[in-house]
Amino acid sequence: MPSADFDVVAIGNAIVDIIARCDESFLSRNGIEKGHMHLVDADRISALYSDVGQAIEISGGSAANSMVGLSSFGGKAAFIGKVADDEFGNIFGHDVRAAKVQFDSKPVSGGAPTSRSLIAVTPDGERTMNTFLGISTDLDDGEIDPTLIEKAEITYLEGYLFDQPEAKAAFRQAVSIAKAKGRRVALTLSDSFCVDRHRDEFRTLIKDGIDILFANDSEITALYQTDSFDDAAKQAGQEVDIAALTRSAEGSIIYSNHSATKIAAAPVSDLVDTTGAGDLYAAGVLYGIAKGLDPAKSGALGSLAAAEIISHIGARPEASLAELAKKTGVLG
Amino acid sequence: MPSADFDVVAIGNAIVDIIARCDESFLSRNGIEKGHMHLVDADRISALYSDVGQAIEISGGSAANSMVGLSSFGGKAAFIGKVADDEFGNIFGHDVRAAKVQFDSKPVSGGAPTSRSLIAVTPDGERTMNTFLGISTDLDDGEIDPTLIEKAEITYLEGYLFDQPEAKAAFRQAVSIAKAKGRRVALTLSDSFCVDRHRDEFRTLIKDGIDILFANDSEITALYQTDSFDDAAKQAGQEVDIAALTRSAEGSIIYSNHSATKIAAAPVSDLVDTTGAGDLYAAGVLYGIAKGLDPAKSGALGSLAAAEIISHIGARPEASLAELAKKTGVLG
Repeated sequence: MPSADFDVVAIGNAIVDIIARCDESFLSRNGIEKGHMHLVDADRISALYSDVGQAIEISGGSAANSMVGLSSFGGKAAFIGKVADDEFGNIFGHDVRAAKVQFDSKPVSGGAPTSRSLIAVTPDGERTMNTFLGISTDLDDGEIDPTLIEKAEITYLEGYLFDQPEAKAAFRQAVSIAKAKGRRVALTLSDSFCVDRHRDEFRTLIKDGIDILFANDSEITALYQTDSFDDAAKQAGQEVDIAALTRSAEGSIIYSNHSATKIAAAPVSDLVDTTGAGDLYAAGVLYGIAKGLDPAKSGALGSLAAAEIISHIGARPEASLAELAKKTGVLG
Repeated sequence: MPSADFDVVAIGNAIVDIIARCDESFLSRNGIEKGHMHLVDADRISALYSDVGQAIEISGGSAANSMVGLSSFGGKAAFIGKVADDEFGNIFGHDVRAAKVQFDSKPVSGGAPTSRSLIAVTPDGERTMNTFLGISTDLDDGEIDPTLIEKAEITYLEGYLFDQPEAKAAFRQAVSIAKAKGRRVALTLSDSFCVDRHRDEFRTLIKDGIDILFANDSEITALYQTDSFDDAAKQAGQEVDIAALTRSAEGSIIYSNHSATKIAAAPVSDLVDTTGAGDLYAAGVLYGIAKGLDPAKSGALGSLAAAEIISHIGARPEASLAELAKKTGVLG
C-alpha cells in the first residue's frame, strides 16, 4: 500500500449496473415502484432481465461511483467492497482502478456471484433499480482494513449496506477506528425504503458517530417521520456537523454548524439518465469538505458533478470533473 | 420455431464488446495498428484491458449487429453463432433476442468462454478492435440449422469467421443449402487483414457461391491485390450480382447487374464512435434488397443506419431505424 493519505475511503456495495431503457409499462406490469432501489433475488432479476430490452453493462455501486467522482476532481480515494471471482467482479475491479481509486479487496471464489443492478431508465430519465445482492452481502468486519480507515480524512458509509447485518457490524467497527484517530465519518442514507427498514439503527448511528450526512428529500423525511422537508432538515442540521440534503431540480441545502446554505442545481440541457446523480453530488461535496472549501463552493461542486452524470447513460463521469470545475469557474 | 420466413439469417461471431475511450498513445505503446481487428489470446486481451481506462460492456459481433439493425428497420432476422454458458454469453443472448432477432444457439458449458472484443476508441472516433475468440472458434457445421437457412431469403456470412477452419466448412454447407433452395447468399469481407489471411479461399467462395458482396475500400483492394479502388470495384461488380462497397465519409457504390449507383454518406453532426458503421450499412442495404428496393434506396438506408450508429457509443442502434427512415423521408 502506498504511504500517501486519502481524502476519502468509502465502504459500499460493489455493483455492476445493467442499464436498459424501458417504457412506463415495464414498471407497471412488473409491479415496480418508480425511482427506488428494490432488492431482488436471482429468479426475480432473471425474470426482469428477460422482459427488458437491450442493455449495456457499466460499473456502478453508489459509494464506488462517488469515489470515482472524487478521483475525477483530483481527490485521493479508496474503496472497500466485495466482488466474486467472475466476469462482473473483473469488470468492477478494472473500472474502479482505471479511475485511480485504490481497491484492494480480493475477489472471492466459490460463493455468490458479483452483485448487479438492473436499472430501468424511463423516457423521463428517471432510474429504477432492481438490485441482486450477491457476494456484496458477505461484507463483514474482516474486510475493514484499519490502516486504510486511519489514513483517510473521511470514511464514507453507504446506507444500502444496512440491509446486511454483518455489514452493519463492519460499519460500527470502521466508525470506531476513524473516531479513535480523530477522523470524520460520513453517511449517505441511500434510499427511503432502506431508511424505513432500518430507521432506528440509522438514528442511533447518526447521533453517535456521523459527522457528515447525505440524504435526499424523501430519505430525510422518512428518517425523521415527518412530511415537512424543512423540519427534517433542521433536525438533521442539529444532529450532525454537516448535512447535505438534495431536492432534485430544486438544488440542495447544506447545513454546516447549524447554518444553512442554499445551493442551486447546475443547468442540464439534456436529461438522459438520473442514475448516479446523488452519488456524484456526494463526490463533489466530499471533495470540497476534504479540501476545506466552504459549503457554497462544496455544494457547487456537487451540483456540477450531478449535472454531468445525468447528461449521459451510466453513473461514472465521462468528462474530467477537475477540468469541468475549472472551465465553469467553480474552481480557479 | 415459428413458421414465418426470415428476410436474412446471419452466421457470425457472437461477441460482447468492451468499449473504452483511449488516446493515441495507448495504441502506439501496445503496438496496435489503428482501425483494424486484431485477433488476440487470453493473456493479451487481459494485458490490454489492464492498460485501458474505464469501459462499458455492450453486445456486438459484426453480423449480429447487422441483424439487430435489420430488425430495427422492421425486417425479420435470425442469427447463428456460438456462446458459452457464462455472463457474456447471457448478455449476448439477451440483447440479440431483446432486439427481436431469432437466436436458437444453445450456450456451451465447459469449453472456452464467450468471445469478447476490447474496442479502443480514439478521440477521432475511430475504433480499433482486439478480439479474443473464445467459444466462437468452435462454430462448425453442426450449428447450421438447414431449415433456418432454407426459410431465409438471404443467408449472410461474416468474413471474420474465415479465421476458423471448421467455420469455413459450416459456411460452405450453408451456401449449398441456400443454393439448393434457390436462396441468395451474401458475404462481408470484414477486415483487410482477414482478407490477406484467406484471399484465395475468399476469391473461390465469391466466384462459386456469393450473390451479394459487402466490402470497404481497403478490403476490396486487398481482395483483388490492386491499389485502385475503381479497378477492384469493377472486378467485384462482374463477379457478383450485387456489390456494396463503402468508402467511409465518401459514401458508397452499389454495383447491381454490372451498373454502378453512387450513394452519398448521410450527414453526421457528432462523430462519437465508428464501431459498427459497416455492420449497420450492411443492415440497411440487406433490408432494401430483401424488400426489393432499388440500389439507390437500399444504399440510402445503409447510409442512414451507419450515420445513426456512429453518433453514439456501441454498435447497436439506439433509435428505431424504421422510424428514422420514415422521418427522414428515405422510406414513405
